[in-house]
Amino acid sequence: MDLKILQDVVLEFARERDWEQFHDPKNLSMALASEVGELNALLRWIRNEDVPAALAVAGKRDALREEVGDIGILILLLCAHSNGHFDEAVLAKLKKNSLKYPVRESKGRPDPPTSSLRISD
Amino acid sequence: MDLKILQDVVLEFARERDWEQFHDPKNLSMALASEVGELNALLRWIRNEDVPAALAVAGKRDALREEVGDIGILILLLCAHSNGHFDEAVLAKLKKNSLKYPVRESKGRPDPPTSSLRISD
Amino acid sequence: MDLKILQDVVLEFARERDWEQFHDPKNLSMALASEVGELNALLRWIRNEDVPAALAVAGKRDALREEVGDIGILILLLCAHSNGHFDEAVLAKLKKNSLKYPVRESKGRPDPPTSSLRISD
Amino acid sequence: MDLKILQDVVLEFARERDWEQFHDPKNLSMALASEVGELNALLRWIRNEDVPAALAVAGKRDALREEVGDIGILILLLCAHSNGHFDEAVLAKLKKNSLKYPVRESKGRPDPPTSSLRISD
Repeated sequence: MDLKILQDVVLEFARERDWEQFHDPKNLSMALASEVGELNALLRWIRNEDVPAALAVAGKRDALREEVGDIGILILLLCAHSNGHFDEAVLAKLKKNSLKYPVRESKGRPDPPTSSLRISD
Repeated sequence: MDLKILQDVVLEFARERDWEQFHDPKNLSMALASEVGELNALLRWIRNEDVPAALAVAGKRDALREEVGDIGILILLLCAHSNGHFDEAVLAKLKKNSLKYPVRESKGRPDPPTSSLRISD
Repeated sequence: MDLKILQDVVLEFARERDWEQFHDPKNLSMALASEVGELNALLRWIRNEDVPAALAVAGKRDALREEVGDIGILILLLCAHSNGHFDEAVLAKLKKNSLKYPVRESKGRPDPPTSSLRISD
Repeated sequence: MDLKILQDVVLEFARERDWEQFHDPKNLSMALASEVGELNALLRWIRNEDVPAALAVAGKRDALREEVGDIGILILLLCAHSNGHFDEAVLAKLKKNSLKYPVRESKGRPDPPTSSLRISD
């Protein structure tokens, strides 16, 4: 499916409910924290090796899909309300990551090759 | 852009770095919490009325786009690793939401019409 | 250490920098999302069985302690700015949880005994 | 209230339910993401200027206190399971922050004085 069409459907859903007034970047960031929190809630107490079996159960798999849907709706709204494009953002970040994580040095290592432990604020 | 193509690019990026081993649903959920946290960090201390001006500055706008990119990469990976589809998840959730939030009762009200305050665990 | 004293130290730190203006409940919630995100970033790619060894390394252990400190500072600020008390909130929630999770039915089971899968918004 | 006593109560609650097996650092980080997400859910759609009135309503204020309680329980569990101390972590971070944010340069400015925009992974 084309992303532009998907985003238009999401925007229309909000528009017909007069919800655009709530969808400023700060509120959408909080909403994303909320929905990503629900995703984490789904999986937090399941042992890693038991996750595939848990997701083979329809109820859990559907719950995961709902959280993906919520996160998807919000990220598309955030793009729309900050003049961004989901696909361009993904591709631009992959391009930047390809410099930060060269294939050879990053094989099987998920942290930047030159990084020491970064402690931030 | 077609979502299937975008997801394939994301998957290939991980595959050539042998990163699939890290991308189980629990780890991806934690990574989403991390990147949504960075999004919130960008905006947390800016007053709501100052956000548009802040995002008019290239550095801040680019930083926001990077966070959107990170979240986008992770949600596409999560879909791929849980046999889901981003667009289907978004559309299914909108459909469910359309029942929960009927247009008329939800005009300008972002909470479910029948909800009392829900306190969960 | 007494919590009241700890909270006073945290409040004084903010007060002498004139930061109270930033510490409304929404901003503090976003800041908590940010710092909990950093905590998740620290651990996301480490396999569960490797976490103890990772935390035995001083750099990682210190990084974890920093995130605990950040979360602690913010939750104490949130209490102060919403007329709440950290210890009362913890004890009240434990009391409520003791009804929701009776010892016998909850032995080794982290989900409420009567719960079916809850799918929320 | 003394923090040591509060932590002991929290630990005992988990111990009598045989829940320690779930409380490794990764799971607790996910649980914190979940509960901080619920906190954000409470406040996300309320305009900043309406938050005080919202929190003057008992139901909302109690809901906020519950989230503070949940976050408090989890951060105390994380300290216990990573050989850390909540109060020491808070004080150590304040000490570090006092160097990063000197009073004079930080008056009314919540970002580090020397920071340019930091874009991280």
